[in-house]
Amino acid sequence: MDWPLQISDYLAAKAPLGSQVSIRGWVRTRRDSKAGFSFINVHDGSAFDGIQVVADQSLPNYQDDVLKLSAGCSVEVSGELVKSAGKEQAVELQAQAISVLGWVDDPETYPVAKKRHSFEYLRTVAHLRPRTNTFGAVARVRNSAYQAIHRYFSERSFNWVNTPIITASDCEGAGEMFRVSTLDLLQVPRNDKGEIDFSRDFFADEAFLTVSGQLNGEAFCTALSRIYTFGPTFRAENSHTSRHLAEFWMVEPEVAFANLQDNADMAEEFLQTIFKAVLNECGDDMAFFAQHVNADAITRLQSIVDSEFVRMDYSEAITILEKCGKQFEFPLHWGVDLQSEHERYLAEEHVGRPVILMNYPKSIKAFYMRANDDDKTCAAMDVLAPGIGEIIGGSQREERLDLLDEKMDALGLKEDLWWYRDLRRYGTVPHAGFGLGFERLLNYITGLDNVRDVIPFPRVPGSALF
Amino acid sequence: MDWPLQISDYLAAKAPLGSQVSIRGWVRTRRDSKAGFSFINVHDGSAFDGIQVVADQSLPNYQDDVLKLSAGCSVEVSGELVKSAGKEQAVELQAQAISVLGWVDDPETYPVAKKRHSFEYLRTVAHLRPRTNTFGAVARVRNSAYQAIHRYFSERSFNWVNTPIITASDCEGAGEMFRVSTLDLLQVPRNDKGEIDFSRDFFADEAFLTVSGQLNGEAFCTALSRIYTFGPTFRAENSHTSRHLAEFWMVEPEVAFANLQDNADMAEEFLQTIFKAVLNECGDDMAFFAQHVNADAITRLQSIVDSEFVRMDYSEAITILEKCGKQFEFPLHWGVDLQSEHERYLAEEHVGRPVILMNYPKSIKAFYMRANDDDKTCAAMDVLAPGIGEIIGGSQREERLDLLDEKMDALGLKEDLWWYRDLRRYGTVPHAGFGLGFERLLNYITGLDNVRDVIPFPRVPGSALF
Repeated sequence: MDWPLQISDYLAAKAPLGSQVSIRGWVRTRRDSKAGFSFINVHDGSAFDGIQVVADQSLPNYQDDVLKLSAGCSVEVSGELVKSAGKEQAVELQAQAISVLGWVDDPETYPVAKKRHSFEYLRTVAHLRPRTNTFGAVARVRNSAYQAIHRYFSERSFNWVNTPIITASDCEGAGEMFRVSTLDLLQVPRNDKGEIDFSRDFFADEAFLTVSGQLNGEAFCTALSRIYTFGPTFRAENSHTSRHLAEFWMVEPEVAFANLQDNADMAEEFLQTIFKAVLNECGDDMAFFAQHVNADAITRLQSIVDSEFVRMDYSEAITILEKCGKQFEFPLHWGVDLQSEHERYLAEEHVGRPVILMNYPKSIKAFYMRANDDDKTCAAMDVLAPGIGEIIGGSQREERLDLLDEKMDALGLKEDLWWYRDLRRYGTVPHAGFGLGFERLLNYITGLDNVRDVIPFPRVPGSALF
Repeated sequence: MDWPLQISDYLAAKAPLGSQVSIRGWVRTRRDSKAGFSFINVHDGSAFDGIQVVADQSLPNYQDDVLKLSAGCSVEVSGELVKSAGKEQAVELQAQAISVLGWVDDPETYPVAKKRHSFEYLRTVAHLRPRTNTFGAVARVRNSAYQAIHRYFSERSFNWVNTPIITASDCEGAGEMFRVSTLDLLQVPRNDKGEIDFSRDFFADEAFLTVSGQLNGEAFCTALSRIYTFGPTFRAENSHTSRHLAEFWMVEPEVAFANLQDNADMAEEFLQTIFKAVLNECGDDMAFFAQHVNADAITRLQSIVDSEFVRMDYSEAITILEKCGKQFEFPLHWGVDLQSEHERYLAEEHVGRPVILMNYPKSIKAFYMRANDDDKTCAAMDVLAPGIGEIIGGSQREERLDLLDEKMDALGLKEDLWWYRDLRRYGTVPHAGFGLGFERLLNYITGLDNVRDVIPFPRVPGSALF
């Protein structure tokens, strides 16, 4: 089929000057000249910029329609593509016909009419905020990063695997979970002991929303060698911070025959590839973020693309932090987890570029992480980036059944996760992977502080609007 | 970083004969020759085929290890890539060293040891079934189709948008929904009237798992012009059929300034593009399906790639079906929905290629579909394919507020969906889109009958295993 050119195509000179073209989109601004014509900026979301339409009073509906156009009206404009008189754009559209497709019901109260709204307010009109400069740019950048992630893995022979959203086990203890049920809450069935009778629920068992696809992903990794998951995950934490969502997207690659060093190399290559793609594909959107949101937005991504990431042992990091003379809010000694202030000191002040911290105390890490020979640490890693702290967490997985069983016994997981043990009983292999929260990545890319502003319809305690 | 070559690369001659290489994977079969060597077929999931390893008794661990290898053992083999003596493959690997990474705990009971298992049985070991020929092929084909879908939209300037999984409204009435909650089921809070007090639930409201991302997608479509969603959707239907999953993946594009004809053109181009990609990228996997699952698997995809889809009005289809003289189980007259037998008769017997049925009676279609001027039909379409029936359903959306309001009033949706009405109050535009169930598409591609066999971990009534 013939896909019509969009405004982005005309701005990128995909049609020669003098072409007869037509565009469809929404009015952003209208400015009337005393000389008897109007400049109308029309957007269609295909690019950060709209195209300037020049409408002359000789248009038959100039008085009745053109002079009434306000922000948000939808129009179809046909005319000639001409060299722009202004400096902002190379081309503009000299209108020969303008038809109004949809008016704005009461322009005075159009919720996103004004140029500047607070982000808090715009969350209450999340259905309209993609029409604004900021949230249009967020949507394009989110898409660009998303597609780049799929390309990154695809080009390296990974298979995308979807892991289940509904799960019957709280495998990881990674956090509070949402219950999924079809039981009638007014008549919850009970068994003889007075307990809830989940055998009568939809799945004949207690069911929850997943907190991670990793364990399921490992099952496919130990058959297909290279897999990744990229889907929604959930936390029922009552956290009202700028960093927590009840529903967020996570990328989790898992690679067979890989160790912790390979995993660190992949994390570095991965971040650099994604950042490079966004900088290449969304130049105008990123320029907007750098100008209006965070002056470092572009330079810090570029610096990560150009840097070699430092590898450092957790133990070395502790020594550095203890000796650095800086006063931290959270005191620190070998064996405790790092706080954001420590992570950012290491990345921003001590080395000035991303650091991959490795070999954490095993007592503070998850049961599936591979024990090191020192009997104290495990093959875990966190990638710390200047300006944000931890952005990726991963590990080599424990592939030795006896050592895994020790951990699972202690947590009482062996019965529930019999199938996960099978992956070690049958042709076990070394393997490693990591997890990256997509919204935190987007906060880093755009410079926006709040995860609620980089996902289309945020779910947080007290609100599942839209 | 350096990504090691995989077995697929060696089979595709990406390393010259005579190269010293090493591979890592899982043993499929071992055959010992009386002449003092063994043939070991090793898979790593990167291709349908494994590579043949030739292990000579001169290997130091030939007796202790090689002769004990069984299906599922993991190995690392280094050696020389040589021309194969057999006819099946061009190359084989003459082993110089074989190390066993993981044995199989009791080869007699290895759940996927045998060559042929029933699909029903394999669902009970869904964590191991990707190691089999059939389910390895399914995983690669699923990935190939998934990536092709993202490429299709990306190359046409669509933005991927994730719509929320958790939703507070049953907007469409499209089916039974799962409740999402953190309420304590043993102490469900009630209000003064004795009703459940959802203000005390996590989202301060009743919340469910989404049945479709379309309405949310439309909000982004009316800002970015071309968007698509591709994510999990849910139905709490107690259906124990081969066509129903409680959790399944759906693709939903939405295009501004498009009408029903554009939508039909997109559906045709979309299916042809995806099928072409899978045929190109997964030739060996598809050959396996054609040989072992459905002899038509390849030819029917190829025929769709090569066909022009027929467009037909619903009304014309009714006339054809009434006059065709065939005895249908479900009787038919203008105004009722078609059954699978009717759809398949039209596609398979009447025209012999895909048919896009258009302009259905509005009484049997959803509230958001655009009313036609005849006051009887709406701008809905279904794509019917030979061998499966309906594979895509879509429509032009009702962009006129007054007509939409009539429908929403009748269903009592206006209050809940105030934001959806806003999309028509502010710069409304014609737009259209469709929905495609990813698992049904994969059933069609692979020839496998059951949706449970084309998703990694199926969720169905009574089971959320793994």
